[in-house]
Amino acid sequence: MSDHPPAHAGDRAARVALTWLAEPGNRTVWSLVEEGGAEATLARLLSGDVADKSLRTAAMAKAANLDPRRLAELTLRRAERLGARIVVPGDEEWPERVQSLAVLTLEGTQRVNLDVRPPLCFWVRGEWPLGETLERSVAVVGARAASGYGVHATNEIAYGLAENGWTVVSGGAFGIDAAAHRAALAAGGRTVAVLACGVDRPYPLGNSAMFEQIAETGLLISEWPPGAEPLKHRFLIRNRVIAAATAGTVLVEAAARSGAIQTMGRVLALGRPAMVVPGPITSAMSVGCHELLRSRPDATLVTGPADVLETVGRIGEYQAVVPRGPEHRRDALDEESALILESVPRRGTITPEDLAVRAGLSLRLVLRRLSLLELTGLVERRGTGVALARGSR
Amino acid sequence: MSDHPPAHAGDRAARVALTWLAEPGNRTVWSLVEEGGAEATLARLLSGDVADKSLRTAAMAKAANLDPRRLAELTLRRAERLGARIVVPGDEEWPERVQSLAVLTLEGTQRVNLDVRPPLCFWVRGEWPLGETLERSVAVVGARAASGYGVHATNEIAYGLAENGWTVVSGGAFGIDAAAHRAALAAGGRTVAVLACGVDRPYPLGNSAMFEQIAETGLLISEWPPGAEPLKHRFLIRNRVIAAATAGTVLVEAAARSGAIQTMGRVLALGRPAMVVPGPITSAMSVGCHELLRSRPDATLVTGPADVLETVGRIGEYQAVVPRGPEHRRDALDEESALILESVPRRGTITPEDLAVRAGLSLRLVLRRLSLLELTGLVERRGTGVALARGSR
Repeated sequence: MSDHPPAHAGDRAARVALTWLAEPGNRTVWSLVEEGGAEATLARLLSGDVADKSLRTAAMAKAANLDPRRLAELTLRRAERLGARIVVPGDEEWPERVQSLAVLTLEGTQRVNLDVRPPLCFWVRGEWPLGETLERSVAVVGARAASGYGVHATNEIAYGLAENGWTVVSGGAFGIDAAAHRAALAAGGRTVAVLACGVDRPYPLGNSAMFEQIAETGLLISEWPPGAEPLKHRFLIRNRVIAAATAGTVLVEAAARSGAIQTMGRVLALGRPAMVVPGPITSAMSVGCHELLRSRPDATLVTGPADVLETVGRIGEYQAVVPRGPEHRRDALDEESALILESVPRRGTITPEDLAVRAGLSLRLVLRRLSLLELTGLVERRGTGVALARGSR
Repeated sequence: MSDHPPAHAGDRAARVALTWLAEPGNRTVWSLVEEGGAEATLARLLSGDVADKSLRTAAMAKAANLDPRRLAELTLRRAERLGARIVVPGDEEWPERVQSLAVLTLEGTQRVNLDVRPPLCFWVRGEWPLGETLERSVAVVGARAASGYGVHATNEIAYGLAENGWTVVSGGAFGIDAAAHRAALAAGGRTVAVLACGVDRPYPLGNSAMFEQIAETGLLISEWPPGAEPLKHRFLIRNRVIAAATAGTVLVEAAARSGAIQTMGRVLALGRPAMVVPGPITSAMSVGCHELLRSRPDATLVTGPADVLETVGRIGEYQAVVPRGPEHRRDALDEESALILESVPRRGTITPEDLAVRAGLSLRLVLRRLSLLELTGLVERRGTGVALARGSR
């Protein structure tokens, strides 16, 4: 399943500390962890051995007041008492799809567009294994100030998805989000609320009863440790996970110039289907949806669960990242992956064994890199071989 | 204006006879007229000198019962009494845009997809010159069984278009068509009803009062002579004219698998904007619209007159045919335009001054070529700069 090294206690604790020292998604922290592991990265951060000055200053200021290793230990103990567990890469239940954030490139130089790297860990409340639960999942999101029409459309779609064995993912907010969770619960299906705060104090308070029900039959998850506050900027950070963890995202209602446009931009940049429910042109709550359908020809109009299932089914639940153009994706590859990709024939399939011979690399390395290439949508499995993905030729 | 030879009485009469011998749009008749003129074509048809056997048989059978030249003469005299005129290529008021049907290629081998060539003539009732009236025109069409929502949306759009000096073109049917004509009349604007029968007996009868009003302040037009019946197949033949004579077509409401999908396919094949009004996913009368938006990513969602004006304004009212892909358009560029296009950054905007420096050309030349590039939809203005058009990247 995973090409991460198996997780161990020190790694887990280091990830908790790192998430406290810098917000999830931080590109520098993530790159350092990729290179040298979480514990070494924590050590470097605590000794001031990082080039990124603002990160160094912020981390050292935080560490001056409280020992991050001690904090991590306390947090892990507290989580255990609360019935929350931590999931990290290398765990069986790590949701591999979020790794697609590793190669996400967005326009703009704002932090929110740069710090979109994969989570270091997830805090989870609920019985289901996280990865398996998110494998066949669709996000259903939209306005807090939903109309009756929007709630109706959300019910239809979320109920239909849950009935068909798909997990409904949303953000737990009032309006469309809550309607999506509730419809999935009503269908007896699985639903996951991705929070921007600790899983012990899900926000908003008004949805508490719903959150309890989700914790019992689905999953409450968060990148932030128990006790974390739902700070405003965290919702934007959180949104990248909703986009990356699911096979596609459905936007039901959005006002003009809504933040949902940004979320759907991330979905499209990840190469996932961005599905949009139209509405009456007379409804203010559909203006954002129509704006999106007008401005992004790659967004897909959907009118019900059948359209959604057709869209995510066609794209394939395992095909994760198809960023903008094949060129972009190729540019982001490491040398070995590029070599392997070059060695895949332009037509037909090739076995990993033959590929290893062609590329002059070990089979073990080829297999590992193929998972990544498959994840980025550049190659696809066909029977016992692999081939160039249709869109990438 | 026109590259047709000036019309004369013999040509006019021959076109009337030809339209009686074969339905408008017939590809063989149109090609023969292009080659040798209408009179020579009529002579060939009447002497059996055409390779197309079914055309020859049908024409000779008709001519056996009634001399086509005599019929043409009678028809022209009758039309004059009724206050209808005939307009042919070469006339000042011939609507040049319909000539784009000369190169229309559609999939399928059915007559309706092959016999889509330009009209040989138009019968017209109303004072305005036909060509000028259609120059800035948008078609607004849709279901006969329109809902209150559809009629409301049609009102908004057609009224707004008429208010902005655009002619509203439709088919005169009940429902959306009639709502479009009426809204244009109410705005004091111009409207054109393109009929599938004689302009002396517009169909349906229930819209008679409206047709009289259109004849007084707008235009009733038809390819068929006065007295012609609204036979079922004629509506499909007529639809190609609505698509070809206008700068773009707006579809307001359509039931599932409606004929409107076919019409919009023709609009897109002609490179014109196919604009679609969304509606509630709960409305049966919006199902066809949503189907179209899902199946044709090149169709444009519109929510009101502003969207329509932006779409037809951007494309440019004179630009008739935008062939299939950006590559096609690029291939057609002269060397300097290609150089300028190459110099526009892939992202963001550039001022014409910087573009001149990058391309190594004079600002004057760059400005001139930019107008052309904008017209072909390859670049677009943004503020004081230009950028690659969204669809052309």
